[in-house]
Amino acid sequence: MGSLDSNNSSQTQSNVPKFNPLDPEEFRTQAHQMVDFIADYYKNIETYPVLSQVEPGYLRTQLPENAPYCPESFDSIMKDVQNHIVPGMTHWLSPNFFAFFPATVSSAAFIGEMLCNCFNSVGFNWLASPAMTELEMIVMDWLANMLKLPKAFMFSGTGGGVLQSTTSEAILCTLIAARDRKLDNIGADNIGKLVVYGSDQTHSTYTKACKVAGIFPCNIRAVPTSIESDFALSPVVLRGIIEADVAAGLVPLFLCATVGTTSTTAVDPLSQLGQLAEEFDIWLHVDAAYGGSACICPEFRRYLDGIERANSLSLSPHKWLLSYLDCCCMWVREPNVLVKALSTNPEYLRNKRSEYDSVVDYKDWQIGTGRKFKSLRLWLVMRSYGIANLQSHIRSDVRMAKMFEGFVRSDPRFEVVVPRRFSLVCFRFNPNKEHEPVYTEFLNKKLLDTINSTGLVYMTHTIVGGIYMLRFAVGATLTEDRHVISAWKLIKESSEGLLRRSVF
Amino acid sequence: MGSLDSNNSSQTQSNVPKFNPLDPEEFRTQAHQMVDFIADYYKNIETYPVLSQVEPGYLRTQLPENAPYCPESFDSIMKDVQNHIVPGMTHWLSPNFFAFFPATVSSAAFIGEMLCNCFNSVGFNWLASPAMTELEMIVMDWLANMLKLPKAFMFSGTGGGVLQSTTSEAILCTLIAARDRKLDNIGADNIGKLVVYGSDQTHSTYTKACKVAGIFPCNIRAVPTSIESDFALSPVVLRGIIEADVAAGLVPLFLCATVGTTSTTAVDPLSQLGQLAEEFDIWLHVDAAYGGSACICPEFRRYLDGIERANSLSLSPHKWLLSYLDCCCMWVREPNVLVKALSTNPEYLRNKRSEYDSVVDYKDWQIGTGRKFKSLRLWLVMRSYGIANLQSHIRSDVRMAKMFEGFVRSDPRFEVVVPRRFSLVCFRFNPNKEHEPVYTEFLNKKLLDTINSTGLVYMTHTIVGGIYMLRFAVGATLTEDRHVISAWKLIKESSEGLLRRSVF
Repeated sequence: MGSLDSNNSSQTQSNVPKFNPLDPEEFRTQAHQMVDFIADYYKNIETYPVLSQVEPGYLRTQLPENAPYCPESFDSIMKDVQNHIVPGMTHWLSPNFFAFFPATVSSAAFIGEMLCNCFNSVGFNWLASPAMTELEMIVMDWLANMLKLPKAFMFSGTGGGVLQSTTSEAILCTLIAARDRKLDNIGADNIGKLVVYGSDQTHSTYTKACKVAGIFPCNIRAVPTSIESDFALSPVVLRGIIEADVAAGLVPLFLCATVGTTSTTAVDPLSQLGQLAEEFDIWLHVDAAYGGSACICPEFRRYLDGIERANSLSLSPHKWLLSYLDCCCMWVREPNVLVKALSTNPEYLRNKRSEYDSVVDYKDWQIGTGRKFKSLRLWLVMRSYGIANLQSHIRSDVRMAKMFEGFVRSDPRFEVVVPRRFSLVCFRFNPNKEHEPVYTEFLNKKLLDTINSTGLVYMTHTIVGGIYMLRFAVGATLTEDRHVISAWKLIKESSEGLLRRSVF
Repeated sequence: MGSLDSNNSSQTQSNVPKFNPLDPEEFRTQAHQMVDFIADYYKNIETYPVLSQVEPGYLRTQLPENAPYCPESFDSIMKDVQNHIVPGMTHWLSPNFFAFFPATVSSAAFIGEMLCNCFNSVGFNWLASPAMTELEMIVMDWLANMLKLPKAFMFSGTGGGVLQSTTSEAILCTLIAARDRKLDNIGADNIGKLVVYGSDQTHSTYTKACKVAGIFPCNIRAVPTSIESDFALSPVVLRGIIEADVAAGLVPLFLCATVGTTSTTAVDPLSQLGQLAEEFDIWLHVDAAYGGSACICPEFRRYLDGIERANSLSLSPHKWLLSYLDCCCMWVREPNVLVKALSTNPEYLRNKRSEYDSVVDYKDWQIGTGRKFKSLRLWLVMRSYGIANLQSHIRSDVRMAKMFEGFVRSDPRFEVVVPRRFSLVCFRFNPNKEHEPVYTEFLNKKLLDTINSTGLVYMTHTIVGGIYMLRFAVGATLTEDRHVISAWKLIKESSEGLLRRSVF
């Protein structure tokens, strides 16, 4: 090691081949093999049961208790993937997946994610990878424009957007910003007085985020909704609750309104809620995780009317804009409030760009420090397909959901429980209107079990307003008309089979 | 739409080609092209300047203001990647990247991530993809075994592990668990009494996580460290602070100890800190984000001695176990405390497996609801390379750091400021010991700027104990001896150039 001249560096090299886990040619070979595995998987995806049929603990019996000491071959690992992993998968990308909200994907997003991993840059601040920060800013403005958001949410205006992993993170970040601004005014000691609002249909992660942020559980209000108002949050009821809280000496802080609730895709009235929020100095966040994507189509944009009164908005392209997990867009009207609450400034990250050039350092817009180059995915999706195809993709899903709705309505033994708005149909089997509600619920539970256990289709359920209903969510990228038609056929046949086996 | 028979489904199909963003053959073609792009990038990575040389705002002038309405070709997008994105990248995977802690990668992890995206399963609970939950449990136990963690942290014992995205999330989750258990005893009203502890070397994200969790900023203690104890947290000093807090009527809650601090890889004494934590009923979390990985080698395992007294531990394989971003392993001794604090149970996620089979539902181990199949990455890394190669990878990085340390020590104008423990060398240029400290700092800043502006090498700095020092972090997967040797040559030449240009 005596010589420091790199011409003599061979002296320090050993003669045995060095372990090189990123040998470009080995990488090339294995990655090409994996591409073929995946393309074949997508091609044959319909041959797998949608809902995995394994029993809990199945995998532990098939894999060794410890990691191997010596390397194993690519082939033997891929054999285990096929034999042990694939059977334990619930195939979310199957065209027969109608559960929850499907997670949408595309070739463009996949290669965008490959590119993101290729660089593996950790873009906590601008300097750590300028392209990463700048492309994210551009893509967030692009999507904001597609949604016709006010300039106040864009970098080209006075706001800005950021990519989070999940809605939970987006809500938590905005909540912390709102909380800290309020506590700056009323003092940290008053954290126990802060009250947050949502409806009984707001996503469960909202309550969790509020608890994480130190909001007292007794101060988390879930405003009751009803079937009469399609399970939307009522500004009238909310006003009453806020006024009572204020009268009790509490401090209203945060309101989460939803565009497309998880159970039934209800849409809260943003305009009226926004007025109320302004009146009581409440931070209004709009969770449009699912429904927001539809608003790139003019005919759905009305669901965002009133967004100009909101402080922040989140929307998850992994739900309906073909983007793979995990990708949640969040826009804020006042980035400085967010940054004030979430910034850190350790010495080892200090640099001239952050100090003198007022660049965006995205670490100050999120909970964590590290972050990936996620905007590549959205950028590739938008460019590869164009706004035209993205709109037609939304419309195609809605059209298929309408078709399914038509099937349900055409059969008097079934009913659509909640009006369909986007691509989700909430329905139930109700062959005899004189049955006790508990029996109808039992029947629908049985029906769901029967259908899911076939492995041909996967659907889920919900209970809203006391009514147990089945959810048929169209949206898996590979779903075509024929899948919806076959699913309906299976539902009908299964329901008839149930009736035949029952004593009425 | 009249017929519901799927044999007649062709009636509902349009004759124009449907927009299919997941056509398997298009996917295959594009993904293969991307594989070749990436393999070539890795092959040619040394030709790029490590630290991007662009100016803030460079990208906005090169890309249109809006997303395109019509699709663009793969080729034109890839041309933009090469012309506009690559120049704005700071190349974290360059073998000449010695900044921060490098982010390590491997072919195995890359294809593991491809497979994760292939399935795109959203594994919030067991049923949503059994393989995803079960493989994660197995892999977490595998790594726990490699680290010789006590059984109390394993599923095969009484604890368990989970994959988070970042250390920030791991700390936040464990902190919430600790907080809620404590508040259950003393009442939510007493949140203002909770005190948390770390050192002035604990990662900045810890303070942020504490603030997010509603800990009063005035109750976040950063125990001062000193160069005499290599910047480790002193149990004696900590005891004094805790005792004063207790005497003041405050309630000690949480202590974050670090194995390998970010600035200088200091290691806090876990055993003694654990005793103190037990004595005062404090939740001890060990942040071993960087240093933990080394503990798979017997010669480094001593740094985890005392881990049996901790409540939780986190370690990020994306830092040193070849796993790409983002991948943080977190183990807890009492999963039920974590789950109690973070569980949600919305109707639409209810299922028999979760209710009757006591399966693990990982949504209750994290902040968000959705989650990816990240364990595939770790599983592929462990199996493809085996423990043997992972250990030799750690040792090879440490060996190269030692080599660099030797270079520094061999030149009297330089000094190693803090003893090297892992693969980071903290050093400075100090050609004249009689210089004012402020001048030495100025000189080293100049030296760093000079080196980084060449684009040949990227290093960063820190200030600890008032001393400005340069950090040379070995660890980029592609780094070989020759890169370390050339870097040292560049550092020496640059420092000599500085001296020549200065007036002394």
